[in-house]
Amino acid sequence: GQEDTSRDHSLVFADLTPEEMVQVVRYLRENLRVPLVDASQAKPSDNCIYYIDVQLPTKAEVLLFLDGGVRPPRQALAVVYFGNQPDPNITEYVVGPLPSPKTHRDFTMQKYGGKLPFHRRPVTEKEYKDIDSFISEEFSKAEGFLQYCCDYDGTNLATLTTAPRGFQSGDRVTWFALFQKVYGSGLYVHPVGLEVLVNHSSLDVSQWRLSKVFYNGRYYGDMAQLQREFDQGHVSVVKVKKVSPEEEFGSLKPRAGPGAPGPFQYEPRGPRYSIQGNHVVFQAWSFAFGMDVNAGPRLFDIRFKGDRIVYELSLQEALALYGSNCPGGMVTRYMDGSFGIGKFTYELVRGVDCPYTATYLDRYYLIESETPRANKNSLCIFEHDAAVPLRRHYSNFQSLYYGGLTKSALVFRAISTIINYDYIWDFIFYQNGAIEVKVHATGYISSSFLYDTGIDYGNQVGERTLGTMHNHLVNYKVDLDVAGHKNSLVAQDMVFESVQAPWSPQHQIQRPRLTKKVLEKENQAAFPLHSNIPRYLHFASNQENRWKHQRSYRIQLVSFAGDHLPEVSSMERSISWARYKLAVTKRKEDEPRSTSIYNQNDPWKPTVAFADFVDNETITNEDLVAWISVGFLHVPHAEDIPNTVTVGNGIGFLLRPYNYFNEDPSRDSSDSVYFRAD
Amino acid sequence: GQEDTSRDHSLVFADLTPEEMVQVVRYLRENLRVPLVDASQAKPSDNCIYYIDVQLPTKAEVLLFLDGGVRPPRQALAVVYFGNQPDPNITEYVVGPLPSPKTHRDFTMQKYGGKLPFHRRPVTEKEYKDIDSFISEEFSKAEGFLQYCCDYDGTNLATLTTAPRGFQSGDRVTWFALFQKVYGSGLYVHPVGLEVLVNHSSLDVSQWRLSKVFYNGRYYGDMAQLQREFDQGHVSVVKVKKVSPEEEFGSLKPRAGPGAPGPFQYEPRGPRYSIQGNHVVFQAWSFAFGMDVNAGPRLFDIRFKGDRIVYELSLQEALALYGSNCPGGMVTRYMDGSFGIGKFTYELVRGVDCPYTATYLDRYYLIESETPRANKNSLCIFEHDAAVPLRRHYSNFQSLYYGGLTKSALVFRAISTIINYDYIWDFIFYQNGAIEVKVHATGYISSSFLYDTGIDYGNQVGERTLGTMHNHLVNYKVDLDVAGHKNSLVAQDMVFESVQAPWSPQHQIQRPRLTKKVLEKENQAAFPLHSNIPRYLHFASNQENRWKHQRSYRIQLVSFAGDHLPEVSSMERSISWARYKLAVTKRKEDEPRSTSIYNQNDPWKPTVAFADFVDNETITNEDLVAWISVGFLHVPHAEDIPNTVTVGNGIGFLLRPYNYFNEDPSRDSSDSVYFRAD
Ligand SMILES: [Ca+2]
Ligand SMILES: [Ca+2]
Ligand SMILES: [Ca+2]
Ligand SMILES: [Ca+2]
Ligand SMILES: [Cu+2]
Ligand SMILES: [Cu+2]
Repeated sequence: GQEDTSRDHSLVFADLTPEEMVQVVRYLRENLRVPLVDASQAKPSDNCIYYIDVQLPTKAEVLLFLDGGVRPPRQALAVVYFGNQPDPNITEYVVGPLPSPKTHRDFTMQKYGGKLPFHRRPVTEKEYKDIDSFISEEFSKAEGFLQYCCDYDGTNLATLTTAPRGFQSGDRVTWFALFQKVYGSGLYVHPVGLEVLVNHSSLDVSQWRLSKVFYNGRYYGDMAQLQREFDQGHVSVVKVKKVSPEEEFGSLKPRAGPGAPGPFQYEPRGPRYSIQGNHVVFQAWSFAFGMDVNAGPRLFDIRFKGDRIVYELSLQEALALYGSNCPGGMVTRYMDGSFGIGKFTYELVRGVDCPYTATYLDRYYLIESETPRANKNSLCIFEHDAAVPLRRHYSNFQSLYYGGLTKSALVFRAISTIINYDYIWDFIFYQNGAIEVKVHATGYISSSFLYDTGIDYGNQVGERTLGTMHNHLVNYKVDLDVAGHKNSLVAQDMVFESVQAPWSPQHQIQRPRLTKKVLEKENQAAFPLHSNIPRYLHFASNQENRWKHQRSYRIQLVSFAGDHLPEVSSMERSISWARYKLAVTKRKEDEPRSTSIYNQNDPWKPTVAFADFVDNETITNEDLVAWISVGFLHVPHAEDIPNTVTVGNGIGFLLRPYNYFNEDPSRDSSDSVYFRAD
Repeated sequence: GQEDTSRDHSLVFADLTPEEMVQVVRYLRENLRVPLVDASQAKPSDNCIYYIDVQLPTKAEVLLFLDGGVRPPRQALAVVYFGNQPDPNITEYVVGPLPSPKTHRDFTMQKYGGKLPFHRRPVTEKEYKDIDSFISEEFSKAEGFLQYCCDYDGTNLATLTTAPRGFQSGDRVTWFALFQKVYGSGLYVHPVGLEVLVNHSSLDVSQWRLSKVFYNGRYYGDMAQLQREFDQGHVSVVKVKKVSPEEEFGSLKPRAGPGAPGPFQYEPRGPRYSIQGNHVVFQAWSFAFGMDVNAGPRLFDIRFKGDRIVYELSLQEALALYGSNCPGGMVTRYMDGSFGIGKFTYELVRGVDCPYTATYLDRYYLIESETPRANKNSLCIFEHDAAVPLRRHYSNFQSLYYGGLTKSALVFRAISTIINYDYIWDFIFYQNGAIEVKVHATGYISSSFLYDTGIDYGNQVGERTLGTMHNHLVNYKVDLDVAGHKNSLVAQDMVFESVQAPWSPQHQIQRPRLTKKVLEKENQAAFPLHSNIPRYLHFASNQENRWKHQRSYRIQLVSFAGDHLPEVSSMERSISWARYKLAVTKRKEDEPRSTSIYNQNDPWKPTVAFADFVDNETITNEDLVAWISVGFLHVPHAEDIPNTVTVGNGIGFLLRPYNYFNEDPSRDSSDSVYFRAD
């Protein structure tokens, strides 16, 4: 039936199954004809599979298929680190067809217009482990100092990476900050004042070097120098107070025992949505979902009453850009997509992360390993009563009646824990045809060791902890297809016009009037992060509704963003999607993402620079994509301990029907309530 | 005990009881020594009691009392229309002490610095009825036309008022638009194209005149002229299609029968809040509440862990400012506070307007009557699970643990139906010490008859219905008292500074830095509606938290407002609170409200002009008040039929602790969840 077909259609967007991953690994091992080491064991000078994910067909292929045409072949993307060859590089292969691959094709050149230099590769867990070993060895040159400052016993300090890693293309020189290794609580708020700059650019681990050491406001050439100066009494030492498991500061342990439970949700007749494979149906809504191992959650073919509204709605990047007077803090511009927003969506805790009644789904990843890993219960789907009516009117004027409807919406959620921070990714579907995309930030803040003028960069939040200010910016791709894929971007706003009252010309009226403008070029449709934006912005179609208005969807943003980076910065182009709160471009198959996982480790020569997408092409009556950046300036304060709260730290956007229908489609909801007095 | 004392303290803010209202009426009838007519029957040339509400003591008196001093006398405010005297005027009396009044004092001069001219008085239901009768009589001069255009039978047309009523002080000349009188559904979307301008300024009803008639784009001197031109075939008539009770357009009647119920809230151990009188306790929160008959909901003495954070948090005004090419629409600037935001908070429907489990409370009003009226179940209070964690962190880095807390918040709600529109007023209390104030707009849109270039002012939403664009603006008073009532306003924001990397001076870093500024004068603290505002704005105290930061509360706004009115407008000063998204002023007992109920009918000589409050006084270390304006530009579209939805139409602000505590107080919540692997 219809539903079976839809479910089957959604599979074209499905993530790889563990079986498919295994097949691709098997195929590569048999066919690459090079020695491959499992990434969890691989040295930089080895070859290894970095990750495998689904390679989606082109939109043209998919649309043909959805319209009843041929099913496109199912393919995988395999990213391989070639460290063990004369010209080390990263190669991206398309492998297919699944489930039994027969071919692989190097499409690095096609996708990026050139080879991918090896220094751009994301750092693996194995590389971090090797760096930790390296640092440990270096620490042996300052045992006395470390013992004195930090009660160092060889195991009780942890490193946290920063990024980017240097100042120019080719650098792989990273500041690592040292933290007390506390158990069961966030070490992120226990800096000890020591940071070390590691040059790990060589593929030969034995060639790695400590380039610089920072301790409590001063820089040293290496650990030995720090030890010497310490021995000479030249180092101002702040002895670390050892954090015990019972330590209160930063702990998430409840102080109060459990009390009476609060309200929770109950579904008297069970769930009202259905999930089959990666296909979700809720009232008039249906969509397909997936999880990109790096970029995170993504939805496809979002339909309302059977009509596609959005082809793709996907997270692209999450950026956190810090200030500090410590070196690690001041260079930090985390591009979380390169760390893995998808693979870091861990298990959700029933009753806290999502309601008890939610449906929890597993996801599978293959990254830095040759075997798939399951993140159990890492997606949740549930219906939620917002406890405010979606609409209501109570009348006792002329006649007594009431009509209303609860705001009961479907929520699709994943939560990524990217080291210290937790991002809650929500996609919400309302009965009126609106979609809300929302991200909340929570988890532990990053911190620096507090010294000197630290509070120019944040607030003191602990004895020696500086909660460092930063800007969160999140980018989404929204390939709206409103009543077909040929759309235009229309801006509406208000102006006041001063007019004579028609019935009393000696009097002036200041009258609001609607302004309307088609934004014809990409450059007109790229709105700087802090510019005013027209109050109404629509993806408008060529179809008209019953009242002769263009059937449209409106984009409405909620953001509290700070600035992204001055364009003079040598790395700004790598995050140039953040120049714009909204940019609408002509959709291109070769502009699938606003950034790349390779931008983090070479932001000076970005693999993908979004700014290049905005090249003033004509965007009337074209297949358009909206790229949306929302964020908030976060100045951590005492109340960010133990964790940042979601209250006030939610940002996102709405896609709302605007003359798309002839009336509010929630009229068709069976949840409507109506009564009248007569 | 402590709780009894708090409950008793809250009574100082309590609304009048019906018994108290009755006593004040009795006292006035016995002591005013003038003939008084019940307002529901009173002609303009009569004297009548317009309304009676509580007259709150001064803040100084209340604070003394709350600190253990003497209880201030309980008093009422009585507003009397004196139409039946040589110098007609409105007089405001303070009557007390309750429950057995012994004195009344005319404090009009003291409060307003002059007499209140009679023409400023709000229009009563009786005056509207008399106007309807007058219009009916005038309609007899155009029976043929009305029968032809509108199937007029003397009963099937309804009038809707507009406001303001003229162009200069003293005018009382109102456009009334005619709508099909439909039953059980919103007549507001059924304009017939006819509007009439009624001069009802005379206190002698027989002197009222029809000044102008508008029909389908043309103006006529009176109904007789319209009939004459109709008879001559000069009138372009659009015959009204009679709306039957089964009519779909604009109806709230469900199309689908009830289906499986959606999720709803369940309180396994009952409510976790308590309400005694007007005193609410929820976890660490307590507050007193009341409902101003005109201005609407207000909270007092909001405390967290026993410490006052807000002295007063009160709605001030809701403005809706329209554009149209019909006369009624183009002059409309509704100031809902003069219609009665409080008295129009009607019964809430269980399970739709608030959860089934909510507590519903009655309110009593005395307005346009000599007997109190109950609005049953017109306030609701409930705890709600937002279905997103308040905070959470999942760690599998270094050690495996999880901590989290559901976002379970107390909601205090009332919904005002002001003719066509429904405003949902929410005040939300979170476990982390944050308060959220939110308003959603729903209900029926206002509309004009569609002709000619109507869509310059909105969208066509029905056969002949123009959904007219308008700007919603809502003003709140927030008398924050952060750690005492002496506060200063501090702005923090980010700038980028270009610095040499300390370890590598040949390289520049673009580093975010925190800027901090005390805003010393009122003019610096008045932020124009569409200016950029510092990203962090705090009410800061003289106390420091454990980390030596000023204990503060942050104000964070969410608004999608359009412009308010050009200042050249002769009525702009009457809504000059809307010049500012946020203005912080020195608190004054004689600046209790940002507007007045008398501004609507004489906006050209506003009784209260908020702009006068902003006179550049020093605001450091003073008792400060924040006046906050939020709104949204509303361009109605097809989906506003039948009702505007709340999705995307919510605006408001947050009051968030910022270094007020030493850590997040939600750590003390017994709802916290924590576990670790070891
Ligand atoms: Ca382009
Ligand atoms: Ca598109
Ligand atoms: Ca002042
Ligand atoms: Ca104050
Ligand atoms: Cu943050
Ligand atoms: Cu509106």
